[in-house]
Amino acid sequence: MESAECVTSQPMEKKRPLILVSNDDGITAPGIKALVEVVMEFGEVVVVAPDSPQSGMGHAITITEPLRLDQSNYFGPEVQAYQCSGTPADCVKLAIDKVLHRKPDLLVSGINHGSNSSINVIYSGTMSAAVEGAIDGIQAVGFSLLDYALNADFDGAKSIVRRVVSGVLKHGMPADTLLNVNIPMGPVESLNGIKICRQARAKWVEEFDERTDPYNRRYYWLTGKFKDLDHGEDTDEWALKHNYASVVPVQFDLTAHHAMGILNTWDLNE
Amino acid sequence: MESAECVTSQPMEKKRPLILVSNDDGITAPGIKALVEVVMEFGEVVVVAPDSPQSGMGHAITITEPLRLDQSNYFGPEVQAYQCSGTPADCVKLAIDKVLHRKPDLLVSGINHGSNSSINVIYSGTMSAAVEGAIDGIQAVGFSLLDYALNADFDGAKSIVRRVVSGVLKHGMPADTLLNVNIPMGPVESLNGIKICRQARAKWVEEFDERTDPYNRRYYWLTGKFKDLDHGEDTDEWALKHNYASVVPVQFDLTAHHAMGILNTWDLNE
Repeated sequence: MESAECVTSQPMEKKRPLILVSNDDGITAPGIKALVEVVMEFGEVVVVAPDSPQSGMGHAITITEPLRLDQSNYFGPEVQAYQCSGTPADCVKLAIDKVLHRKPDLLVSGINHGSNSSINVIYSGTMSAAVEGAIDGIQAVGFSLLDYALNADFDGAKSIVRRVVSGVLKHGMPADTLLNVNIPMGPVESLNGIKICRQARAKWVEEFDERTDPYNRRYYWLTGKFKDLDHGEDTDEWALKHNYASVVPVQFDLTAHHAMGILNTWDLNE
Repeated sequence: MESAECVTSQPMEKKRPLILVSNDDGITAPGIKALVEVVMEFGEVVVVAPDSPQSGMGHAITITEPLRLDQSNYFGPEVQAYQCSGTPADCVKLAIDKVLHRKPDLLVSGINHGSNSSINVIYSGTMSAAVEGAIDGIQAVGFSLLDYALNADFDGAKSIVRRVVSGVLKHGMPADTLLNVNIPMGPVESLNGIKICRQARAKWVEEFDERTDPYNRRYYWLTGKFKDLDHGEDTDEWALKHNYASVVPVQFDLTAHHAMGILNTWDLNE
């Protein structure tokens, strides 16, 4: 990782923000290219991203096999980039320990090809990269575009990324919080704006597609239907349906504090 | 899945609770055997667990390859059991869609070989199985023993499982909540009791072990040091250090509600 040295070689008098970029669609996905293009306007950019797609990896980490980390020229000479054989969370951990020589000022993940709104935050590799940074005290944002297509148009999304990144660097992130930003398809002029939201109550109803292989053994493909169980007008699902980009502040303290009192009335020690 | 039919074949006049069991250490781990032995006292048990260890899988789901699901006689004739090629979250999804013919009254996951306290809840496959159930409206508890050894003594843990399962079935779980139960090593008499806790503020400081393979290429093993950043006496880390079993109520709404007001003062739409 010799070349990682240049991360600290900025002139001291004018230190630009250091911005770590990752994703879960892999280093060659158009979405991370769009994200890098925007954040290069704000600072020095280092990319550490999976070498292959990692969608649906949730907050998986790799503990039973070793990881590879190789330099990549994918983003041109101005951007230090590395591809990693692990999950998005692995990428961030490796970046912090082995690539960056100081704590980044910002971690951005994405732009994901497809929504990570509401309960999808739980399954999202994009968000796990951002969560991993936030746990380590790094300001972090995950970005997702509501378009699964490889040739999705990221122009509208890039405008939203620019506004959110600018806001984070100007105001500073509230403590122990990261952002989950989802962006409808279309040019920025077609959007109604950006809305601060809560995570909608929602779930997937699974419908596994059962098939038989050529050796007469059954196998199953995961499919499902998304169910929005929420009627609130303050949720990310509501915002996205009404053509707003949704910004949900996310925490990694999963304690259901309101339930502690109830549990204390149980007689677990009797 | 013909044999799954017997799940609904209980006499109507005396329906025992239907209890789904999963884990992340795999169907042959001693911990899940201990868990099955306890919950058989409370109801009809169906196991759907990974066919190989899945530790550190977080909330990963399998979307790029198909899943296998095979019956297992591992728990004897009284327990329907299936081993699945996927992650813990996949196991629960498959169980709900393809194995069980009614909604289970309880989902238990574990007993994990090793702690899932504080921030480890995020990386835990054990907890992801429980979270997956809770999202679907099923009462769910993840159990972990603070002993990584394959030959760990689960006797003390089994007493704690018995008390917690009894409590859940008696009182009913608070809405949209599941439990993360961690249990110190040792016989139950050596424990100070069960304590309702919040998730401690903690993180891992990574120290990747860098090595060179026989072909002169670098590779990295994930290692790290756990840092408890919390000084509270109401945390799971405090409880475990003081020889209590810790019970943390966990939620899957990740919204940092307190941060919404702050973000609304930002000028993201200007």
